[in-house]
This record gives sequence, C-alpha cells and structure tokens, in this order.
Amino acid sequence: QHLLLEARKLISANADVYIQRLSEAIAIPSVSTDLVHRDDCFAMADLLHRWIEDLGGSAEKVLVGFQELDDGTRYDLPPVILGEFADPRRMNKPTVLVYGHYDVQPAEAGDGWKTDPFKLTEVDGDMYGRGSTDDKGPVLAWLWAIEVYRELGVELPVNLKICFEGMEESNSECLGDLLERETKRGGFLSDVDYVVITDNYWVTKEKPCLTYGLRGLATFECEVRGGSQMLHSGVHGGCIAEPMTDLVQILAAVSAMGHGDIGIEGCGKDASAELTEDEEELYRGISFDTDTFREDSGGVVKLVGENAQEVLMNRWRYPALSIHGIEGAYSGTGFKTVIPGSVTGKFSIRLVPGQDPKGVEEAVKSVIEERFAEMKSPNELRITSSSSKPWLANPKSGLYQAGAAALLKVYGVRPDLTREGGSIPITDMLQEKIGVETMLLPLGQSNDGSHSNNEKMSRKNYLRGVQVLFSLMTEVARVHG
Amino acid sequence: QHLLLEARKLISANADVYIQRLSEAIAIPSVSTDLVHRDDCFAMADLLHRWIEDLGGSAEKVLVGFQELDDGTRYDLPPVILGEFADPRRMNKPTVLVYGHYDVQPAEAGDGWKTDPFKLTEVDGDMYGRGSTDDKGPVLAWLWAIEVYRELGVELPVNLKICFEGMEESNSECLGDLLERETKRGGFLSDVDYVVITDNYWVTKEKPCLTYGLRGLATFECEVRGGSQMLHSGVHGGCIAEPMTDLVQILAAVSAMGHGDIGIEGCGKDASAELTEDEEELYRGISFDTDTFREDSGGVVKLVGENAQEVLMNRWRYPALSIHGIEGAYSGTGFKTVIPGSVTGKFSIRLVPGQDPKGVEEAVKSVIEERFAEMKSPNELRITSSSSKPWLANPKSGLYQAGAAALLKVYGVRPDLTREGGSIPITDMLQEKIGVETMLLPLGQSNDGSHSNNEKMSRKNYLRGVQVLFSLMTEVARVHG
Ligand SMILES: [Zn+2]
Ligand SMILES: [Zn+2]
Ligand SMILES: [Zn+2]
Ligand SMILES: [Zn+2]
Repeated sequence: QHLLLEARKLISANADVYIQRLSEAIAIPSVSTDLVHRDDCFAMADLLHRWIEDLGGSAEKVLVGFQELDDGTRYDLPPVILGEFADPRRMNKPTVLVYGHYDVQPAEAGDGWKTDPFKLTEVDGDMYGRGSTDDKGPVLAWLWAIEVYRELGVELPVNLKICFEGMEESNSECLGDLLERETKRGGFLSDVDYVVITDNYWVTKEKPCLTYGLRGLATFECEVRGGSQMLHSGVHGGCIAEPMTDLVQILAAVSAMGHGDIGIEGCGKDASAELTEDEEELYRGISFDTDTFREDSGGVVKLVGENAQEVLMNRWRYPALSIHGIEGAYSGTGFKTVIPGSVTGKFSIRLVPGQDPKGVEEAVKSVIEERFAEMKSPNELRITSSSSKPWLANPKSGLYQAGAAALLKVYGVRPDLTREGGSIPITDMLQEKIGVETMLLPLGQSNDGSHSNNEKMSRKNYLRGVQVLFSLMTEVARVHG
Repeated sequence: QHLLLEARKLISANADVYIQRLSEAIAIPSVSTDLVHRDDCFAMADLLHRWIEDLGGSAEKVLVGFQELDDGTRYDLPPVILGEFADPRRMNKPTVLVYGHYDVQPAEAGDGWKTDPFKLTEVDGDMYGRGSTDDKGPVLAWLWAIEVYRELGVELPVNLKICFEGMEESNSECLGDLLERETKRGGFLSDVDYVVITDNYWVTKEKPCLTYGLRGLATFECEVRGGSQMLHSGVHGGCIAEPMTDLVQILAAVSAMGHGDIGIEGCGKDASAELTEDEEELYRGISFDTDTFREDSGGVVKLVGENAQEVLMNRWRYPALSIHGIEGAYSGTGFKTVIPGSVTGKFSIRLVPGQDPKGVEEAVKSVIEERFAEMKSPNELRITSSSSKPWLANPKSGLYQAGAAALLKVYGVRPDLTREGGSIPITDMLQEKIGVETMLLPLGQSNDGSHSNNEKMSRKNYLRGVQVLFSLMTEVARVHG
C-alpha cells in the first residue's frame, strides 16, 4: 500500500510527460486498414520497440506476413512486438502476458470530428484523438506502469511479456500463426501463466469493471438470385418470381419469434447455458441505469427485459438475432418501382456459451432451405455463413481477484464483474492457444467512442490506468504466491 | 391510298430535313426536373409554338403554375402548348386532340451514354439522343404529318387540337387544373371527339401495336420506428425490439402468397375483371416471344406463366405486388453488424380493372396493422400509401379501327392490340376529364430505352411515324364519317 502511494505521487508528478508521449503516439496515424498508412504503422512499432528497450526490456519486431496487390507489389504486415521484462534470478515469479494493439481505425478530419483526429486535444478533462482509448492509451499505460517500478527502484513483481500487435483493426491477420508457433514448447509464449487484455471499456461512465465473458457471432448472407438486372415493376411485375419476395419470407422465417428470443431450435435461449445462482448474484450487484442506456441508444421506446438484470442478461448471456439489411434492393429515399434482380439478406446471431456455433449455422441454413423449398421459387439460393465462438472466463479465479484488488485500491470500489455482448476475437484466440486464465481489464469509459468520431480517453482514466496496471502486477504476484 | 403514296414520296424526299429538325430539338436539354434547365424548357416550347404558327395553326403557351424555392424565388413551370388547326368551313369534321410532351428525363454524358445525349447521333439506323423517342420524336412526327398535308395542298381531314406539355417527366404538375378549366363548356377542349396519345412503345422490336389498357398503381411506404440511430448488435442485440424484425414480418405478410398472386382479399387475381372470350382472343394473336423477353429481362430463370398468353396477361391484366427495397437498413457490400434504428419498407401493387384502388390501399393497411399488432412490438408503425387508377379503352371502337387501318397501310400488318403493365398517368387523366375515346398510339420500339441511357428512336420508325399519323387523320375522318 505504501508502494502504491509512492507510485501515485510519481504518476501525478509525471502526468504531463505521460500525456505528451500519448500525444506523440496519436500523431502517428497507424491505420492498418489503409496501405497509405503502412509506414506509419511501422513508425509506431519502432516507437514502442525502442521504448521497451529503453525501459530495460528486450523486444523484437516480428514480421508475420504480407499483403500482395494485383500488380504483385508486396507490403509487409505491421509487425507484432514481442517484449519481455524477465528477472532471471527469480524464476518463481508468475509470467503475465499483456496484449494490446498499436494500430487504429481510420479517421478523417471533418467526418464529424470536432478536433483534428491525429492531434491529441484535451477538452474538459477528456483527451480526444484517434487511438486515445483504442488502444494506444492503454498500451502506453502499461509502459508507464513499468517505468514507475523502475523510477521507484523496485523490481517488477512479475515476469512481464508483451504482445502489441499492429493488425487488430484488420482482423488480427496472421496473428494466429504466430501464436501457434510461439506457444509450442520452448516458444516465447510457452511459459505464460496469465493473460491480461486491455482493449475494451467499462459498462458505464462511472464504475470500473472486469470483463469475463463475450458473445460469439454467427453471420449469414443469404442471396436470392433472379436475373442479372434491376427490372421495372410496370413492365415485369407479375411475370417474374421476384427475389425480394423470397427473401422477405426467408428473413421472416429465421426471425419468426419476433422480439425476445430466436425461434430456431438450438439457436435461442433454450440452448444457452443454465443460469446459476452464482451467476445471477453477479448481475444483482452491477450498477446499470436502464433509462440512461435507453436514452443513449437513440431513445428506443422500450428495452427488452423487465429490469436492469434482465436487460444485461439479454445483452450478454443470451443469444440475439439481428437483421442488418439487404444488399441489391432499392435503399434510397423516395419511391422507385424497381424489381431487384438479385438480393442478399444479411443477418447474424450473437452466440453464447452452451451453443455450438457450427450447429447454429446448420440449423439456420436448414430453416432457410426448408422455407425456400416450400415456395417452389425458380430463383437460386446461396447461403454463406461463418462463426466465432463465445468466450467465458471464471470471474472467481485468482487473476480476477487480483484485478478486483487492484481496481479497489485505485478507485476505492469493488469492480463490477461484467460481460460484453459483442466479440473481441483476439480474446478467444489467446485463451485457446495459450490455455491459461485470461482477463479483460478495461481502462476506458463506456462513452469513449472507440471506432467512432471524437474518440477520447479521459485524462483521469489514463492516469489512473497507470496506477491500476502498476497495482495489478503486485496483486497478481500476491495471488500467485 | 393514292394520297398516302404521295405523302410517302414526300416524306422520303424530306427525310434529312425531318432528322435535322429532330437534331435541333434534341440539342435543347429541356429537362423539367432540373431548374437549371428551366430556360431550355421554355426555349423548346418557343420552338414548337413558332412551328405550329408557321404551319398555319394557332397556338398559345399557357402558364399553369410555378415552383417556389425556400428563399422565395419563383420559377414558372414550363408552359403547356395548346395549338389548333381548325377548318371553320367544315364543322362536321371530327376534332382530334393530340397529346405529347417536350420535356425530357435528365441525362449525363458519361453516365453510360455511348454518345453525347444532347447531340442526335445515328448509328446503324438508330438515332441516339435524350428525348429521341420520349417524346420529341413522336411530337415532331405530328408536326411533319401536318406539314405533309400542307405541302400536298390537301386540307387536314380532321380538326386537330394539340396539347404538348413540358412537365410530363415531373408528374404533369398542374396539368389537371388546366384540363379541368378547358373541358368546361366553351373551353378549348370542350369539343374534342377523340384523344390520341403518342408517348409509349411497341411491345416488341418488330411489330406495331395499339395500346388500350394500362395498370394502375398503389404504392406503400411502411415505416417502423425504433430509436433515432443505428445501433451495434454487439452492444444492443437482445435488448432492443429491432424494427427490421417487425418490418420483415410485415413484408412477409403482405407478400404471403409468394409468386403468381397476391394473398390479400380484394388485391389479387380474385378481384380482377373477368376474362372474356373476346379478350382472350386478342391475346392469342399477339406476337410475343417469351424466350427473347426472358433474355432481355436480365436472364431470369423462369417467367410466371405457362405460355406467351399467360405471361402477357400477368404483365397487363392481373395485379402484381413488388417489394422494391428498404430505406434505413444497411445496404452496402460486405457485412456490418448494425441494428437500424428506423426502417421503411417500400412496395407497390399494380392495379387492374375490377379493383378499387382505395379498397386495395385499405386492405393492405389492415393486413399490416393486424400483423404488427400480433407482434406486440413497442416500435411505432406508420403507413403511407397512394394510388392511381388503371385505364382501359374499348379496342373495338372507331378510334382503334382507324388506328389499325393506318398502321396496316403503313406497315402492311394489322397491329396487335395490347396493354401495358405500367401506368401513364396522363392517359387516365385525359380520359376522365375529356370523357371521349382515347388511344395510345406508340411510334417507337420496345428497345428504345426511354428514361435509360442510350435512348434512341430508329430512323425508320421516326419516318414511318410521320406516315402513320398522316394516315391516321384520314382514317379517323373515315370512321367518324
Ligand atoms: Zn481495440
Ligand atoms: Zn478497435
Ligand atoms: Zn418519359
Ligand atoms: Zn413520355
């Protein structure tokens, strides 16, 4: 506790430096989805690489693959930075792997941004800039936490390994191969005891949390092909088996149960893991104001769920089907009497523990094929689907106890134990390949707006984040003890 | 017959002049939907006005209204040209009203046009240019037909009245008011005996036809409102009653019967006028190759209808429901896991004689409201609809006999008596206000591409069109006689 106090003083004294460095990182537009910014990705990797070495760690930039253009030009993918702060004298320390990413989403000045997206700008305690919260702020917070131990002249309480990738916003392409290789016996990741991921957000603006579950996702594209062109309903209406007619019947069949559940066996609540007393208890404690959430969600009339607990369960622990839209039909304003030649319906199901992703894909396809057969349509049906698994950790495990203790010390409150309704594919990938306790430790707030314009991280969350990560290392060593 | 022979020689001799004048008309981009081209509309009106007077007729440009911008600026609508070639000495001649329009659809060079849309360009006997077939070619053909009588020194066999409007491509705004006024006792249109409209196309590329029926149209926009913004299915999926789920159920309910009919009482084939022996006979004679039609329709797999007759009946004499698309949902390529906040489904029903347009609107709304109520959705439903009536003339009446005789003389074949599946709202408006026999006499071919890029009229159809209209006047006088 005394150590944390010292750390806190130091962090407070160094605040300007921490923010200045974040500002330098934000100024590098390391957009991984855009080849124009490939050099910036490499520059950002260099910055982190040098910094880790300056802090006394070792690091390498690992090239994991390349993209090839039609003309044969190759572009290396942004490197994965594997870093290490190990103490050869104390082999009994636990080894913690930290995951973060240094690439960012695209951002265009003007595109709704009130400030230059690549110039960190503080307004009322919030620091605006692309990557501020996703994920450069958290990545830098880790490095400052190490720096604080160093300045205090105290050894790191854990062996720290670092994996900072530069392709997270581009589906972490090729990271799987690297993990595969490095988790083999003797590999860089073969001795990891815990994995901590700092790449998500609190459930509210006010209260810290630890995230122990994510939903998976099964996506479906259902194409009904008639002819190759848009026709006119005056000329063709009545003598064409219109693809849109088929498609709405199909979409109606898959969403047959309306709101609150999915009417396909094995795809709905019936297939979810049973709700235990323990789990229900976790939900009871969570601070969550449904009215605020409803307002922040564009003022929807009514949420599905009788109270905060039910609403959260519907978001996190139960599956949900969403129809996103239709490609190929008329989507503009006004009225246009066209008959679309081919249309593709796009929908997805959020998956939860208890469900078999491949089983869900098959069940949905069967429903579609059955409905389509009933219609005796001359059109062609093509369904493509893919799925990613849900992820669930044990929130009572040592790692989560350490996380909770660290947050309690810094924020003075026990964090909520929460899940998210979306997926962070890297989480399941790390959990599966490394096979140890994994924790999502968010540093930013619910309203940080990652991926949207005016992304920000609050000055307070950034600086307290350094304290939290500093403290977490101590706590992990303690529970491991 | 001798007279027609003389006319034919003259037309042949003057072909270059006729095409040169069409070229001048095409060079005036009289796009009524775009205020930038309002002056061009007036220029085009002047050209026709002067020409009618040069031909010895009288004409006036009638201003029918104006458009007002937000800043109060007013723009006069393009004038309606009312012209007349009357013979005061022969009051017993029938009076024929000719309808055409001098405004055109927008066209952008580059937008798929192989030639400059406002420079008439002949390629392999087809004259390409915006307005060539819709409707400047036919309008000019009328004036040349009058010119031919004049050059031959022969009196017009009918009293000819002309209504050339300049807002047809903009819903003929304000024309209704003018018709209302001029059809009153003593009005310009109060003594009309026949109405001939030259503003549609043959059913095929090869054979001329006369059109005696059009379907009406009931349009529906069905909006389901949830919140005001796009949400993310990871964050909100499961706790929101998604508007798209409601909408696909609604669209599935209105299109419940799939292909071939409409499953709402009073809206489908059950409500269509009975098929008489006489009518069936008309269909038997029509030249129509379903394979060509299928190929020209983007290669749809199969037409609805067992043979040419059934396919044509489905296009012309039976109602049809088309779902055009959805506004507000994701319509791009790729996958985006959004939850649309509000969505509007757009569909329409082609109406036929026997159906009550208002009744159809009500029946469809009831089905939607019933289905929506069943779902107990918290979302808001808003339905808007409008409708226009189908139109049907008697193809055995004198006017059609005259039309058939004229086409037989020029083309050497009896024209098919056909309908169209679309609507030409002006037709029903003229029929209703004037209340006399009305005929659609198409001059262009099925593949002329009105409203699309590379609109054309064949040189042959243009020149023969002059013969047809020349001959028609004689034939109308004869049947009226
Ligand atoms: Zn991220
Ligand atoms: Zn991200
Ligand atoms: Zn038109
Ligand atoms: Zn037209």
